[in-house]
Amino acid sequence: MLHPVVLSGGSGTRLWPLSRQNQPKQFLSLIGDRSLYQETVLRASGLPGAQAPVTVCSDDHRFMVGEQLQTVAVPSGGIVLEPMARNTAPAIALAALHVLAGDDDATMLVMPADHLVEDEAAFREAVARATDLAAKDWLVAFGITPDYAETGYGYILRAEELAPGGFRIERFVEKPDLPTAERYLAEGTYAWNSGMFLFRAQRYLDELGRHAPAILAAARAAYATATADLDFIRVGAEAFAASPSDSIDYAVMENTDRAAVVPVSCGWSDIGSWSSLWAVAEHDADGNRHEGDVISVDTRGSLVRASERRLIATIGVEDLVIIDTADATLVARKDRVQDVKTVVDRLKAAGRSEHLFHRKVYRPWGSYDSIGVGPHFQVKRIFVKPGAALSLQKHQHRAEHWVVVSGVAEVTCDDRVFEVRENESTYIPQGSVHRLRNRGSTPVELIEVQSGSYLGEDDIVRLEDVYGRS
Amino acid sequence: MLHPVVLSGGSGTRLWPLSRQNQPKQFLSLIGDRSLYQETVLRASGLPGAQAPVTVCSDDHRFMVGEQLQTVAVPSGGIVLEPMARNTAPAIALAALHVLAGDDDATMLVMPADHLVEDEAAFREAVARATDLAAKDWLVAFGITPDYAETGYGYILRAEELAPGGFRIERFVEKPDLPTAERYLAEGTYAWNSGMFLFRAQRYLDELGRHAPAILAAARAAYATATADLDFIRVGAEAFAASPSDSIDYAVMENTDRAAVVPVSCGWSDIGSWSSLWAVAEHDADGNRHEGDVISVDTRGSLVRASERRLIATIGVEDLVIIDTADATLVARKDRVQDVKTVVDRLKAAGRSEHLFHRKVYRPWGSYDSIGVGPHFQVKRIFVKPGAALSLQKHQHRAEHWVVVSGVAEVTCDDRVFEVRENESTYIPQGSVHRLRNRGSTPVELIEVQSGSYLGEDDIVRLEDVYGRS
Repeated sequence: MLHPVVLSGGSGTRLWPLSRQNQPKQFLSLIGDRSLYQETVLRASGLPGAQAPVTVCSDDHRFMVGEQLQTVAVPSGGIVLEPMARNTAPAIALAALHVLAGDDDATMLVMPADHLVEDEAAFREAVARATDLAAKDWLVAFGITPDYAETGYGYILRAEELAPGGFRIERFVEKPDLPTAERYLAEGTYAWNSGMFLFRAQRYLDELGRHAPAILAAARAAYATATADLDFIRVGAEAFAASPSDSIDYAVMENTDRAAVVPVSCGWSDIGSWSSLWAVAEHDADGNRHEGDVISVDTRGSLVRASERRLIATIGVEDLVIIDTADATLVARKDRVQDVKTVVDRLKAAGRSEHLFHRKVYRPWGSYDSIGVGPHFQVKRIFVKPGAALSLQKHQHRAEHWVVVSGVAEVTCDDRVFEVRENESTYIPQGSVHRLRNRGSTPVELIEVQSGSYLGEDDIVRLEDVYGRS
Repeated sequence: MLHPVVLSGGSGTRLWPLSRQNQPKQFLSLIGDRSLYQETVLRASGLPGAQAPVTVCSDDHRFMVGEQLQTVAVPSGGIVLEPMARNTAPAIALAALHVLAGDDDATMLVMPADHLVEDEAAFREAVARATDLAAKDWLVAFGITPDYAETGYGYILRAEELAPGGFRIERFVEKPDLPTAERYLAEGTYAWNSGMFLFRAQRYLDELGRHAPAILAAARAAYATATADLDFIRVGAEAFAASPSDSIDYAVMENTDRAAVVPVSCGWSDIGSWSSLWAVAEHDADGNRHEGDVISVDTRGSLVRASERRLIATIGVEDLVIIDTADATLVARKDRVQDVKTVVDRLKAAGRSEHLFHRKVYRPWGSYDSIGVGPHFQVKRIFVKPGAALSLQKHQHRAEHWVVVSGVAEVTCDDRVFEVRENESTYIPQGSVHRLRNRGSTPVELIEVQSGSYLGEDDIVRLEDVYGRS
């Protein structure tokens, strides 16, 4: 059976300031309302005979994965948590072990979570070709037929045809310089290495054991002690840490003699930068892509994205990328967006947090947004999902005032449990044990005013937590 | 005696989004910590023998004028409120009547509130020359010696010298085209019309009566019914409305045969656009002027201004103006900033408010900032100055929760009066009569959560107000 495996390990910063470490590219709605991750799981689960997709992601993103799956009503085939980043070869090994546990003849379709595929029919047809090859024990890479001389991707050179539309791989080549990329394009036998693969799970493990036994051993040891926690599969962290960090390309595909490629032209993009997002998005007559509240005068070839409650006005500019968020705005020349990395490096070096978190932070129970700060106070706007509850907790250094502005909150404060309704408030004294819960069917929204000498997120003692965080 | 008269009637939008109708250019800290208005009154009051400056401003800006005077400890010679805008000739007439009421030989130095003068010594020296001419009943315009061929100003052509450094005016000329401006510059007998004037108040009224009697009549009638309200002088609105709207240049200076010009080179700028602010500000080695939290990579010749709690990052851009505020950000090519007007026109046409108000709104008692809004609620951060009080008021459609985060608030709620201290809260039910007062010597800061079906600023009934607004 076909088991889609979605690799969501990336924490890329190339789309900063929208992409942050705790909410990377794959979870953002970059084109349309759904995130790239949601588009990927929908694409996967729409394939004929596909089982519920397995996701491999970092522990930090587990609740976001769960919520995004739920929102698009895609059943989960399991969310495997990588204890730490070890690149794709070990991640795929964990997924292979996981699918084999339920299906000893499992075939895996490996898909990065952050790619765009515009032509789903062409993709489905390529999957069918790849499935035939996988049945003959080939490890199949999807190769994107290049339509221009891109220097930012690795390429795959094909050899003889094994079956209609499927070829043995002659070799993988690194990112070329421009003349080389132009030659590859002209020769017609090269394809971009998309990072998508299809193979029998057991065959992958066999080849991994042959060419990278330390990775296989570490993955097996880590998976042997796996525990299920809600929808999440936690593997042994110490065992996994012992794995070499390597990509499937280096560890397996470049070494096996069973590597095949299925070329496909399916409107694929990895949206690796703001300029490539601009390129794949629809434009107006002036070549602009505007999102949100934008007023533009004599503006051309630009991507402008305004954030909530904010207006962006542009005058006389050309080929710019303007990305506005609650706490940071990027203004870059479109052909210089690769230098977003420089900005992120400066943020890191300065010990700042704008590359880590958005002002609005998602939690398993909902979200909070820090809308005001002062010397001894902070104001947060808090959403609690229906049925959700924050942990039973206390703070050493702050008191909290809660004003409910929507829904009905159930509040625990030391030994009292009571309801607080819209336009009602309550007070949580410093040091008191408290919990906020939404037992209703509509979201609870409240304004929290924190008051105290220290207001960091780390002033929290969790006594109980329905999400296993205590 | 010399009475400085500061004209603060402008509500220009050329520096949008920083400049808004309720907080125009003259009240902004564009260079350094003080506003242009504050720099102007300090410059005026530092002149030898100068009396306390008179300000002419719109009713909307009266509290801002009062507060800005107080902050720089300049005594007020009166704040004359224009009931409506009627251009400079009537405004100066009101000021002339006002200074003559206390000094029947008053000399006036008329200064727009929004100009920059970098060389105060040169300015003082020019004032001395102008004072000598005014004593001989000349109406003196200050002419700025041009240092480049500017096409955005009117020019003054001088005739024969009347006294050292003082000339009869041959004629005023309109904004020239570039070849004409270049010729003016080469000829050396033209100066920019700065909008600054010096003359005996009675002489101005005499000439006004001769050349624009309807303006004089309206100003006299309006001033005849003037009343003092705190520090403010309110003139008759109906009478003033009858005045033709005209500038001192058209109404008087171009018609009188007693017009003189004192040329001066004093580092003058009217900061009429973002590009002229960039030009007068200090730059770094790359020609950039950064204010606030800015990270720039390969950026040149740009003015970048970040607002509070927000980061602006730029990459690879050149000659841009980037002005960030709490609710709107402008990104414009530096040589296209005159089109800010187009953006403001679009805001007006759309019935929006981003050209009228900042998110943070100043009031006589302090300020409020709308930090969060939702379907049936709004969160405001409120500052109340020491000794200040909001009006005794009630709201038909909303209740308010107040959480004090700094200082001690005295709260009136129906027939109770009580104190609310830091980390305490209170509730103002819908329809109840309430007041917030700061009797302490430190500011009160509080978070207000409004809850109700309608949250507009106009849902207020003022029962008593110490600022005369009820």
